[in-house]
This record gives sequence, structure tokens and C-alpha cells, in this order.
Amino acid sequence: MLNFKLSLPTEVFFGKGQIKVVGEQVRRHGGTRVLICYGSDRVKRQGIFDAVTAKLVDKGIAWHELGGIAPNPRITSIREGVRLIREHRCDLIVAIGGGSVLDCAKGISAASGYEGDPWDLYTRKGEVKGVLPLGMVLTLAATGSEMNGTSVVTNLETKQKLAIRLPMLKPRFSVLDPVYTYSVPPDQTAAGTVDIMSHVFEQYFSPVPGTFVQDRLADALLKTCLHYGPVALKEPENYEARANLLWAGTLALNELLTYGKTGDWATHMIGHGVAAHYDVTHGVGLAILFPHWMQFVLGDDAQGKFYDLARNVWGVPLVMERMEAAREGIARTRQFFIELGMPARLREVGVAEDMLPTIAKTVVEFGEVGVFRKLGEKEVLEILKKAY
Amino acid sequence: MLNFKLSLPTEVFFGKGQIKVVGEQVRRHGGTRVLICYGSDRVKRQGIFDAVTAKLVDKGIAWHELGGIAPNPRITSIREGVRLIREHRCDLIVAIGGGSVLDCAKGISAASGYEGDPWDLYTRKGEVKGVLPLGMVLTLAATGSEMNGTSVVTNLETKQKLAIRLPMLKPRFSVLDPVYTYSVPPDQTAAGTVDIMSHVFEQYFSPVPGTFVQDRLADALLKTCLHYGPVALKEPENYEARANLLWAGTLALNELLTYGKTGDWATHMIGHGVAAHYDVTHGVGLAILFPHWMQFVLGDDAQGKFYDLARNVWGVPLVMERMEAAREGIARTRQFFIELGMPARLREVGVAEDMLPTIAKTVVEFGEVGVFRKLGEKEVLEILKKAY
Repeated sequence: MLNFKLSLPTEVFFGKGQIKVVGEQVRRHGGTRVLICYGSDRVKRQGIFDAVTAKLVDKGIAWHELGGIAPNPRITSIREGVRLIREHRCDLIVAIGGGSVLDCAKGISAASGYEGDPWDLYTRKGEVKGVLPLGMVLTLAATGSEMNGTSVVTNLETKQKLAIRLPMLKPRFSVLDPVYTYSVPPDQTAAGTVDIMSHVFEQYFSPVPGTFVQDRLADALLKTCLHYGPVALKEPENYEARANLLWAGTLALNELLTYGKTGDWATHMIGHGVAAHYDVTHGVGLAILFPHWMQFVLGDDAQGKFYDLARNVWGVPLVMERMEAAREGIARTRQFFIELGMPARLREVGVAEDMLPTIAKTVVEFGEVGVFRKLGEKEVLEILKKAY
Repeated sequence: MLNFKLSLPTEVFFGKGQIKVVGEQVRRHGGTRVLICYGSDRVKRQGIFDAVTAKLVDKGIAWHELGGIAPNPRITSIREGVRLIREHRCDLIVAIGGGSVLDCAKGISAASGYEGDPWDLYTRKGEVKGVLPLGMVLTLAATGSEMNGTSVVTNLETKQKLAIRLPMLKPRFSVLDPVYTYSVPPDQTAAGTVDIMSHVFEQYFSPVPGTFVQDRLADALLKTCLHYGPVALKEPENYEARANLLWAGTLALNELLTYGKTGDWATHMIGHGVAAHYDVTHGVGLAILFPHWMQFVLGDDAQGKFYDLARNVWGVPLVMERMEAAREGIARTRQFFIELGMPARLREVGVAEDMLPTIAKTVVEFGEVGVFRKLGEKEVLEILKKAY
């Protein structure tokens, strides 16, 4: 186990009706003029937007809005957000939505105090000097953005999807109401479940030895997804299923699983490479890629982590030989994603075969990816071809 | 799942050599004159005390000390601590030790701004108005006091062991170095492991339905104890075992397992009743009592939680009938505690049989205990008799 520092400053208000705290929380963190970020009109149709603004008005807090933030959020939205922040002299940002909206809000927060173009912060040409405080109202169980300091953004001009990670970008507060996820359509519910599982996999597959407690916590979150993903698909208004998925999504990426170890994240990097060229839903790309990454890094060796995963999470029988069990675990992962309605091949989501080398180049733009097994351009291309 | 608010303000510095941050952390939280609390001379013999004071002196921070804090810490130590705080005008407390020292330091912090006798705060005669910031240096994997706001203290005159729980008593920072637990003797290593498992049990056995993710996290921490408790006994200087136990101990009682549900805590209350009359190590009392509490509340009903525990944690075979499996899980719990070297009966730790009714009365002094099954004086006495 590696040394680590735990710092979880975000306060989470979880459960039905917790939106009631938004006004007092904004006040507590010094907000007097708020920029509200959101994506689709779902948050307006569902009344979530009005619920937030009512609480702000109650406390005498002014607000402005930035809507239409797209999945795989664009740097153009961040530029627009920074413009609004400066025009209205906003002092706090409230994001209502899924991970894309939250990540975009973090980008605006980080860029609000930067003179140059916000994209500089993602390419490391510029440095974040200060941030605006952030409050989140989550409407989708998926990215874990509600307790971490990560912002992933796409630049369609340069065909890049890049991230910044800063402790000061951790939200001050997050409201997680499972009822707000009732209206998430089946395909997004499925993609969100895959996204949560992928975050767990990325941290589970670490070369750092001696992380038993972290690995068993990973099992716990994966089992939760296996248990409730299909329930939420069948019964969208099942509170228990929505609550367990929502909480698992947060715990999957609030650093709990990664304290004391290093994550792999190669599959996410490959997914980002695909998303930079094609508008593929994050979770869908991961559902296609992860089984192939697993098969590729397993090689001829029934590594302990694969065997443990097969036994602990997939319940592969004890009598099965280790290599056979490891392969069975991977097969069940793929099968579970297919049962959730996910596509199994990149060709099914509109990716052109002759683009694979270009995607591979994008993935390794800043060097090899992954730590469980380091992957260069050749290896990434091989995984992309297997997944095609 | 119940609504909850997550608030984890304590920053944790985990790993070998993390003591290096003590000076800067004390400064960061405004400490200029520190009261250092500790228990046995072990922290001085091991050099931990000197390591702390060296870091304070480096930063020009003055310090005073309060040593000799006993296991099951006494209200008399808190009175003495408050006297020292006032005499030297200390503005921050650093505790070096296990849960008893940490709990005592919290009591001093809470009582430092209270005019009356500190015991008033535990009997609810008085109210905590303000606290002094706290920093912890842990030397024992057990109580989880390093991230929570609970202080449990014994009054030998009134024969009571009572607790206060306040968010503002959560430490500002905690240093967790597994190496500091190498010198914990086998009996305390075993009692600490039981203590961690007991905390998990108390939160696992909740009447709140739909807490799958919390229950699987509980499994994860129990498995860690089963895996590493025996290793730490055999190889006291095994870093991996000490690190996993230390981290599991923190996660077992930092609120992670209890968000969204209510814990039972009846067995702790019974243990406190015993400890108010006899100086029994906390973990030892719990090792004796927990299997009997389990057997008592199981009744004739193979409740789901007992069956799940038997299957998920103890690996009881799937073919076993549910009631049989639940009983087997309890038997294995008892057997594991015995293998750790724990006594199995209250008679073995010096408790007099004719004191059992008095202990039962102490336990229910403020009303029934437990929520998984509510226990009155009669039920508590029955469990005590079974455990005798």
C-alpha cells in the first residue's frame, strides 16, 4: 500500500427532498450571484431547475443561467460560461445535471480567474490560479464528479478530450436525490452503470501490491452495480435501486478506492481518444473497450486480480482452474454489458475502421497510457482493432 | 436507505513517515501552544513522542504534556487536561495513542470552553459551547476515533461509561503510520481487530432496508480483518497487514458504513455496562458478547442479514439450508475470536456472576438499547447470563 493523504471536503446531502439545502449552502459558501449550469431541458421539464432557483430567491440570491451543455462537454461552453461569470460578476457556480455538466462547471470555475483561453488549462499551457466555489445538483448516477476535483472536456477543433485534476475544484456541496434520476432514459441508465463499473475497474487494476481493503471495497461497488443496474432498467422509479446506484457512483470516484494505490486509466484514455473523433457516450465506449482491454492485459497469465474478480464479484465456482476462471470473469463482464443493452463493437457506434490508427495516435499523444500494463501506440491500436 | 449528510472534514495522512506533517498541520490549524496527550510510556520508548515534539519545535510551537491516560479513559484525566489547557493557555490538542487517548483528548477539547465539571457534558447536564482543534497520531488499529466526533469516557465514582458525539469534535488531521502499530502486543492487536469487526457488525445489523452498498462495504472491512488479523498476530512487523488493519479500522467508524442507515450499538452498550464495573479491555468484552448477542437476536428466524453475512464473509456453502447457514456464521465468528486468543466467557475476565443484574441495570439506565432488536433490562440480563 502506498502513502496517501485523504481530503474529502465536499459535503453531500443525499436523499429525497435534499434540494431544500441549496439556498443555505450557497449562502454558507459566500454565493450572492450564482451562475446555474445545466444541459438538456430535462432539468427544466422535471422542475429541478425551478426548485433550485426558488431556494436561491428565498435567500435573496441572484442567478444567471448557462444551458445546453452537451454530453462530452465542449470547451466552447466553458468559454461562454467564463464570459457570463465576468459579465454578471458571479461568485459561485451551481451545476444541475450529470457528469458532463458538472465537469463543465468545474472548467468554468477554474478558468474564471485565468486571463488566457480556458483550453490552455487543459493543455497545461496555463495554470489555474484561483477557483469559484462549486455546488452540484446531480441528476445521473455515473461519473462521480460530485465529490472529486476532475474536469474532462472536449475540444472539437483540435480533436482532443483532456482533463484537469485539482483538489481546489472539489465541490463545496453536492445534492444527490435519487428521485432526480427516475427520468434518466434506459440507455443512459445503462451507460451510467457501465461508467461506475469502469471507474472501479480502473482503480482495481493497479500494480501496487497489498491493497486488500481497497480491492474488497471495489468488489462491494461492483456487486451493487450488478445487483441494481438491471433493476433500475426494469423499474426506473425503484428508489432503492436508484439510491444504491447513485451512492455507488459517488463512492466509485471520490478517491476512496484509490487511496494507497495508483489507478490504471488506460481504458478511459482509449475511450477519450474515440470520443475526441466521434460523439460516443462515455459509458458506451467503455462498455465496448473494457472487456477487450481485460483480455489484452490478461495475456497468458491468470493474474491474481483477474482470478479474484471472477471469484468475488462474478461468483465463478471455486472448482474452476485459475486461468479458466479469469477468462470466465471477463466473459461475464462482457455479457453483463450486453444484457444492459450496450453495443459490443466500435463498428456499431459509427466508428470508421480506417480511423483506428488516428485514434490510437490521439490516445498516446502525451506518452504511454496505463500502469497495470503500460500501452504504447501499437498496443492501443491492437485493442482498438479487437474491439472493432 | 435513509437520507443523510456526509461530512468528513478530517484530513488523514496515511503511511510510513507521515509524522513529518505534524508541525505544519498544527500551524495550519492555528496551534501555537499545544497540549500533547498520551497514555503509556510506549509512545516515549518508541520515539513517537520525540518525533512529534521535534516537528513542533521546528515550527516554533510550544507544548505541554498530559501522560498516563488509561484504557477506558477516566473523567479524572479530562479534568486534569482542562486544568493544563487553562494554566498554559493551550490552543490545540495533539493526541498520541489509541482510541482511549483520542477519546480523552476530545473530552478535554469539548470541556475546555465549559465552566462546570466536564462530566456534565456526558450526562447531558451541560452543553458543549466550543472546542479546541484536535490533531491525532494513531498508534493502534481499533476504535476509528481518528475520523469521528465521538468520545467515550468512564466515571469510576458513578460507575458509568458514557459518550458524546459532536461533528465539531472531528479531528482536523490524523496521522496514521502503520509502523507505529508494530509494537502493539498480541493481546491488544487481537482486541483491536475484534473492536473493528464489532463496529462493522453494529452498523451492519440495522433495521433500515435497501442498504445493499453499505452492507457490501461492511463485508469488505470484515474480510480485511479475517485476512490480516491472524497475520498481524504472527508477524507484528508485517507492513501490509498492519496497514490494511489500520485503514480498515478508520473506515469502520468514520461514518462511511452508517450513512443512509442507523446502527444497532446494543452490544457496545452492554460492553460499556461491563466496563463501568470491571476494567475489561473494550475489544475483549465485545469478543465475548457479540456471538451471544447474535444468537439472541437471531431467534428462530434465519434473518436475511445473518444469512448474507454467513455467505459473503464466512464463505458458508451455498448448499447449506438458510437457518443452518446463519448459525454456522455465528459459530465461525465465535471461533475466529477464540483463535485470536480472546476469552469466550465473562467469568474468564473476572466478572462476578451476582453482578450481572447490576450490570444489566447500568446498561438500560437511559432506556432500551439497540434498534435491530430493542433490548430491555430482562433481555440484556439474559444475554449477560448466556455470555457468563
